[in-house]
Amino acid sequence: RNETHCFVHSLLSNRAGALENIQLSNEGRAQERHIDKDPHDSKDQVHHSRLLTKRQITNLTLGIRELSKKLASLKLQLKVRNVFILGKAGDDTLIKLEREVTKWIFQRYGDIKVYVQDSLRENERFDARGLLEQNPQWGDRLRYWNQKLCEEEPQMFDIVLALGGDGTVLYASWIFQRVVPPVLSFSLGSLGFLTKFDFDQFPVTLSRAFDEGITVSLRLRFEATVMRSQNRESKGCNALIDELIGAEEENNLTHKPEPTTHNILNEVVVDRGPNPTMSTIELFGDDEHFTTIQADGVCIATPTGSTAYNLAAGGSLCHPDNPVVLVTAICAHTLSFRPIILPDTVVLRVGVPYDARTSSWASFDGRERVELKPGDYVTISVSRYPFSTVMPLDGTRKDWIESISRTLQWNSRQRQKPL
Amino acid sequence: RNETHCFVHSLLSNRAGALENIQLSNEGRAQERHIDKDPHDSKDQVHHSRLLTKRQITNLTLGIRELSKKLASLKLQLKVRNVFILGKAGDDTLIKLEREVTKWIFQRYGDIKVYVQDSLRENERFDARGLLEQNPQWGDRLRYWNQKLCEEEPQMFDIVLALGGDGTVLYASWIFQRVVPPVLSFSLGSLGFLTKFDFDQFPVTLSRAFDEGITVSLRLRFEATVMRSQNRESKGCNALIDELIGAEEENNLTHKPEPTTHNILNEVVVDRGPNPTMSTIELFGDDEHFTTIQADGVCIATPTGSTAYNLAAGGSLCHPDNPVVLVTAICAHTLSFRPIILPDTVVLRVGVPYDARTSSWASFDGRERVELKPGDYVTISVSRYPFSTVMPLDGTRKDWIESISRTLQWNSRQRQKPL
Amino acid sequence: RNETHCFVHSLLSNRAGALENIQLSNEGRAQERHIDKDPHDSKDQVHHSRLLTKRQITNLTLGIRELSKKLASLKLQLKVRNVFILGKAGDDTLIKLEREVTKWIFQRYGDIKVYVQDSLRENERFDARGLLEQNPQWGDRLRYWNQKLCEEEPQMFDIVLALGGDGTVLYASWIFQRVVPPVLSFSLGSLGFLTKFDFDQFPVTLSRAFDEGITVSLRLRFEATVMRSQNRESKGCNALIDELIGAEEENNLTHKPEPTTHNILNEVVVDRGPNPTMSTIELFGDDEHFTTIQADGVCIATPTGSTAYNLAAGGSLCHPDNPVVLVTAICAHTLSFRPIILPDTVVLRVGVPYDARTSSWASFDGRERVELKPGDYVTISVSRYPFSTVMPLDGTRKDWIESISRTLQWNSRQRQKPL
Amino acid sequence: RNETHCFVHSLLSNRAGALENIQLSNEGRAQERHIDKDPHDSKDQVHHSRLLTKRQITNLTLGIRELSKKLASLKLQLKVRNVFILGKAGDDTLIKLEREVTKWIFQRYGDIKVYVQDSLRENERFDARGLLEQNPQWGDRLRYWNQKLCEEEPQMFDIVLALGGDGTVLYASWIFQRVVPPVLSFSLGSLGFLTKFDFDQFPVTLSRAFDEGITVSLRLRFEATVMRSQNRESKGCNALIDELIGAEEENNLTHKPEPTTHNILNEVVVDRGPNPTMSTIELFGDDEHFTTIQADGVCIATPTGSTAYNLAAGGSLCHPDNPVVLVTAICAHTLSFRPIILPDTVVLRVGVPYDARTSSWASFDGRERVELKPGDYVTISVSRYPFSTVMPLDGTRKDWIESISRTLQWNSRQRQKPL
Repeated sequence: RNETHCFVHSLLSNRAGALENIQLSNEGRAQERHIDKDPHDSKDQVHHSRLLTKRQITNLTLGIRELSKKLASLKLQLKVRNVFILGKAGDDTLIKLEREVTKWIFQRYGDIKVYVQDSLRENERFDARGLLEQNPQWGDRLRYWNQKLCEEEPQMFDIVLALGGDGTVLYASWIFQRVVPPVLSFSLGSLGFLTKFDFDQFPVTLSRAFDEGITVSLRLRFEATVMRSQNRESKGCNALIDELIGAEEENNLTHKPEPTTHNILNEVVVDRGPNPTMSTIELFGDDEHFTTIQADGVCIATPTGSTAYNLAAGGSLCHPDNPVVLVTAICAHTLSFRPIILPDTVVLRVGVPYDARTSSWASFDGRERVELKPGDYVTISVSRYPFSTVMPLDGTRKDWIESISRTLQWNSRQRQKPL
Repeated sequence: RNETHCFVHSLLSNRAGALENIQLSNEGRAQERHIDKDPHDSKDQVHHSRLLTKRQITNLTLGIRELSKKLASLKLQLKVRNVFILGKAGDDTLIKLEREVTKWIFQRYGDIKVYVQDSLRENERFDARGLLEQNPQWGDRLRYWNQKLCEEEPQMFDIVLALGGDGTVLYASWIFQRVVPPVLSFSLGSLGFLTKFDFDQFPVTLSRAFDEGITVSLRLRFEATVMRSQNRESKGCNALIDELIGAEEENNLTHKPEPTTHNILNEVVVDRGPNPTMSTIELFGDDEHFTTIQADGVCIATPTGSTAYNLAAGGSLCHPDNPVVLVTAICAHTLSFRPIILPDTVVLRVGVPYDARTSSWASFDGRERVELKPGDYVTISVSRYPFSTVMPLDGTRKDWIESISRTLQWNSRQRQKPL
Repeated sequence: RNETHCFVHSLLSNRAGALENIQLSNEGRAQERHIDKDPHDSKDQVHHSRLLTKRQITNLTLGIRELSKKLASLKLQLKVRNVFILGKAGDDTLIKLEREVTKWIFQRYGDIKVYVQDSLRENERFDARGLLEQNPQWGDRLRYWNQKLCEEEPQMFDIVLALGGDGTVLYASWIFQRVVPPVLSFSLGSLGFLTKFDFDQFPVTLSRAFDEGITVSLRLRFEATVMRSQNRESKGCNALIDELIGAEEENNLTHKPEPTTHNILNEVVVDRGPNPTMSTIELFGDDEHFTTIQADGVCIATPTGSTAYNLAAGGSLCHPDNPVVLVTAICAHTLSFRPIILPDTVVLRVGVPYDARTSSWASFDGRERVELKPGDYVTISVSRYPFSTVMPLDGTRKDWIESISRTLQWNSRQRQKPL
Repeated sequence: RNETHCFVHSLLSNRAGALENIQLSNEGRAQERHIDKDPHDSKDQVHHSRLLTKRQITNLTLGIRELSKKLASLKLQLKVRNVFILGKAGDDTLIKLEREVTKWIFQRYGDIKVYVQDSLRENERFDARGLLEQNPQWGDRLRYWNQKLCEEEPQMFDIVLALGGDGTVLYASWIFQRVVPPVLSFSLGSLGFLTKFDFDQFPVTLSRAFDEGITVSLRLRFEATVMRSQNRESKGCNALIDELIGAEEENNLTHKPEPTTHNILNEVVVDRGPNPTMSTIELFGDDEHFTTIQADGVCIATPTGSTAYNLAAGGSLCHPDNPVVLVTAICAHTLSFRPIILPDTVVLRVGVPYDARTSSWASFDGRERVELKPGDYVTISVSRYPFSTVMPLDGTRKDWIESISRTLQWNSRQRQKPL
């Protein structure tokens, strides 16, 4: 039991600092520091996984595994000052519940500020005005967040309360692209893989979390960057392989990273997108060309994502603690593509050969879809910013096998009617 | 051995006539006849599978099976007058080979006319002018086909010579949407499932076919029609089920067929198309609601199509003689969707529920892609117009198991290097 | 509606006669007739599928398909004189129910004889004595069957009542190795694939069947015969292939059939049996060597068997009306063994190569297990004796899709808890 | 580069010592020490995984991962004094090669002793006499090993040379049940997953290994112990679950370990063995009952074993560096058993319920098969004794993806014949 106030944040900060330092080669450090301050400044040279040495990636993954282990056995005391509330995008029925939680916190705790989404400011269901009429002193404690705040000051929030299901948790991962506060997720229907608490019990759950502490589970994320070919003039079928395997000349970069790096919790998919025909995709791991995939696409999933699209594509179900990467073809036009499981130290690159007839499309956690023209690729490696979810304390731990049995009906059979 | 001249055509005509008659209920006959003359007149009520009784479908399938059996054991004498040559769309390298075949036929047979594609009329590689300079009498024998001719006078052609691989044969099926002349296909690379003859041997192959006769194998096609909802006003999740299972009132049609019915050789796919999210698809068989599929899509394949997209989706490999329909989900988000195999007498309807968030898309043999809005569906049943391919005579029959072993490397293993 | 008394039997007899004649080559006829009279006389040359020409097999399968179609649309009037009651082997709790049905028939119908298993003669639960004390006239109507009677006079029984589930129906198929009376099966728990009636409703079900008639569905069975190598002296790895593909010399038979031919309803499995290591199995179809399988075994299933072991081995689910054979490897040690679906006209032979290190084992419907030594094989082809099950009349037809959904939870998903 | 002589042994000894200490609770230490001296003394209470706390297992796995990482980047100098040569059991053709290697070592190195299998002492092919006639001084250097020596003095051997393929390496794992010397494996055919060197190059390979040093890769093994029920009197279906999940009373042990613990490199399989019917198997992970499996069996594989039986059962292919356990059902009779991947910290228990109709059988690396009667179970957890294989130095590293592509033809396709 750790009594330090705000231990999570110190851990997270230390970690983030440590992990960031890990991956900076001497040459890269100056730019990198810069980037952390202004991730949108694309004029500076942006970091990307290719800059990391294999040793740096290995250290990063070992660092995360250690932190993960440390956190699993600790009960963390929170000194909650700022709570972040997140609803399901596009689902208005949840707004009343967000209001209910906000009001409960205001009534119960005298000094906690609550941040709700910007768009609720004038929302009639949320009725901020009505809320403040009940107690004008709450005026200073009701705050609003927007995407910019999440990007710039994620450390400010002591905890995220997510309402609505696994999709909302995924949305939290999307909003917090770098440091993520611990996410406590409430289910409004059945519990899921990431939603561990029943909304009906929220007062008990929140009291315990705020007063007694929380246990946090760390989940692997990937960072994925689209790399654009700098020279698309007609090239042969092996040109991409030559470019990615051969030594890159310093002064003659074949590819340039896009400014945005995505931190993803479930999977990166590269597929045929709106094309009616199969994609041809080149898969690289570290400095090797692994294989050429002719398929609808390929799914590169985290263990957390093993129960999402990876499942649909035929992949195995993978416990979220495993430090691995799941590679599964989507409708491969071959009999012999069995899914493979790689160490999380691998740097994958998934590209479109120069002689492909059509583009392929990369999507990140099923959200943004980006066209990859012939010659482009995506680089995927473990993220410096893992995702932390609040787990139930004590005996009511709902385990993973129970989740897949209940949610996916894993290995379920019809029960025989007794005589 | 059958000595009748042009036996194939008489069989095909008789069959086509017989089969068409089979499926006309008394009420439907007048319109049907009309349609056969003018399939593009959408003002008339168009036939669709829903008009066929189960008994009619059953008779149709039994008729095809019998014809199929009869043809398998016959050697058919052709009196070839008109040859149709088909190249691979978009592959100019084949044009010289088309020319080579044309010239060989002109030199060897004094009275056979050859139809090549319209677009070759002024093509420099084909060089029609140069050909006719060699022998001006060939001028009357070199003809050109276009899509309209294939639609209106398919019976005119005694045989189709397809150059280029399984894709070209599929293209032949696309061009001949109703009656299909026997298709003799030449491979330019390795033999495929539908390409049974090596181009290098074409003079021997054609001499035998024209002089000694051919053996024909009949392959099941589907006919598929898109049905448009006539009333899309906001409806609940079971509205489509109610409309398709409940009795339809004569004067209140819920759906209207699109004017074009597709005859397809490989598969109908209904999938999410360019949508980034899973589709919800309702599957009906005859008068039952089979299941609701949440997946990237569903593939309804003929036995011929079992080695195409069905394979990629995880379906079994199915001998082309089997009178069955293969239903395989594409990346179902469930652990328990095992592919199913239904009799070819089934009428399937694949629809988008009214409360779906997005459209789905239907594609036919991987070609035309049509949007299905919520409430629309596709009806799929056995086609009256099966597809006939020319098989090798005598001992060199290349069988199906050999095809899947060679082409798909079915059950192949690394051979041990001997000591 | 057919009013002829005992139409089923006449159909079955005609069919059996016709089908038996079909498969007799002139040379084979004399012996064959003999065998039908005394299937246990192994001194005579026993028929086996290898004697049938491809044309005979084709005619046989077409004959069954036609009969199947005819039966599906008929309501058959039974004149029931002899009822056969079958319980679940080894389940004593059913005996009281057998007694209940017997008594009900005696009370309701004055002239029907009921045959129960021999072993119930002195059984205390069945209490034949007590039954006859209630009405001494029932003494002549209570009869006992044994295996010998089933083999010799199957035509005597007008209907089989099976109590206990799909396993009991399979047992009926095992008992009636040649002609099978129509089987009406009662479920004591949930309905299954072959058990179509709820035992709770038995008085209504039997009244209707006996008074109004029945509808019968015909199911494909295989006949399988073990062929013993006549000369096992050390032979190379291709010796079996040479023997089975090459022309057999009349006077030098390489293999000799075992006296018993098994008629099976679900599947023939050839596997490693008690061996700890993989089997090597040669698969032949008609006159071709299909492939060499290195696996735990191979499952050759009927459509009825597609939901049994075939499902466990990864095969597709197949509607029982399809005239096909399902070939699925059991734990193949290769990535590229996809299940294949063959026409029911195929004659399969599954053998152990001469140079195999160990024997394999053949089992028939999961019952008898027979060792196949190197050089032995099993021949499998469509049976002359299909299996007929009684289907529900009128609207309550429980369809196949409903069966796989309910019994196997096909494509089932967790329902979302509504808000 | 590490210059210390015999660094491997010191590492291995330190590790073994450290790891052994890790898992000894205070109460267990005395007995444990005893066991290490005399593993066959079954009168003492034998250690088994149940005695280890979760924390001890976690420390053990982390210790192995760290050692594994350390070894991967080191080039180890060997001071070779004793070489152990292992041939393929039952393959006499290798004996001449074993002789060739022995002679080469004798000629090239003046002081290295070579141990060959006991059974070669009088073997004519090996011809020890002839060898010693060439140089009588070799007499002292040619030694013989037997199973007892491997068990009692594994530290004596500096390196194992395995001839013959992956099976021989598996055999080395079987022989060295506790500490394993580094295994350098020569392939006589194609390279495999564990055989990394071509026999043709053995003089170069051995010179380099002995003179320049080796790189070692560490592979996870499991330790598996059969636990016998102490009280089999008729118990209900949940009795085993109650016994294994509930708190065990100190003075009333429900189960007793068998004296032998197996260290396995590929997999533990619990299956129906020679039984003709499906097995019912209870699967436990740590203190939870995971699921009841109705199947032919279940395969619990290491990452190394992912390409062996796990592949045949349908499991994913898993890079050997992943610290995970692969659980795959063998022919599950359900549609929804997808393979699962668990952390290597898990303690699995696989048992036969008390009400099972038949026994199941446990096998270890495909070798010894042990009957599990109703109530018995096997406990499986990470082994204290990982397996170390010698990897190629420098540029010729043959990677895992290349292995699965070459050996299993992973994702291979027919190449198109060019025009």
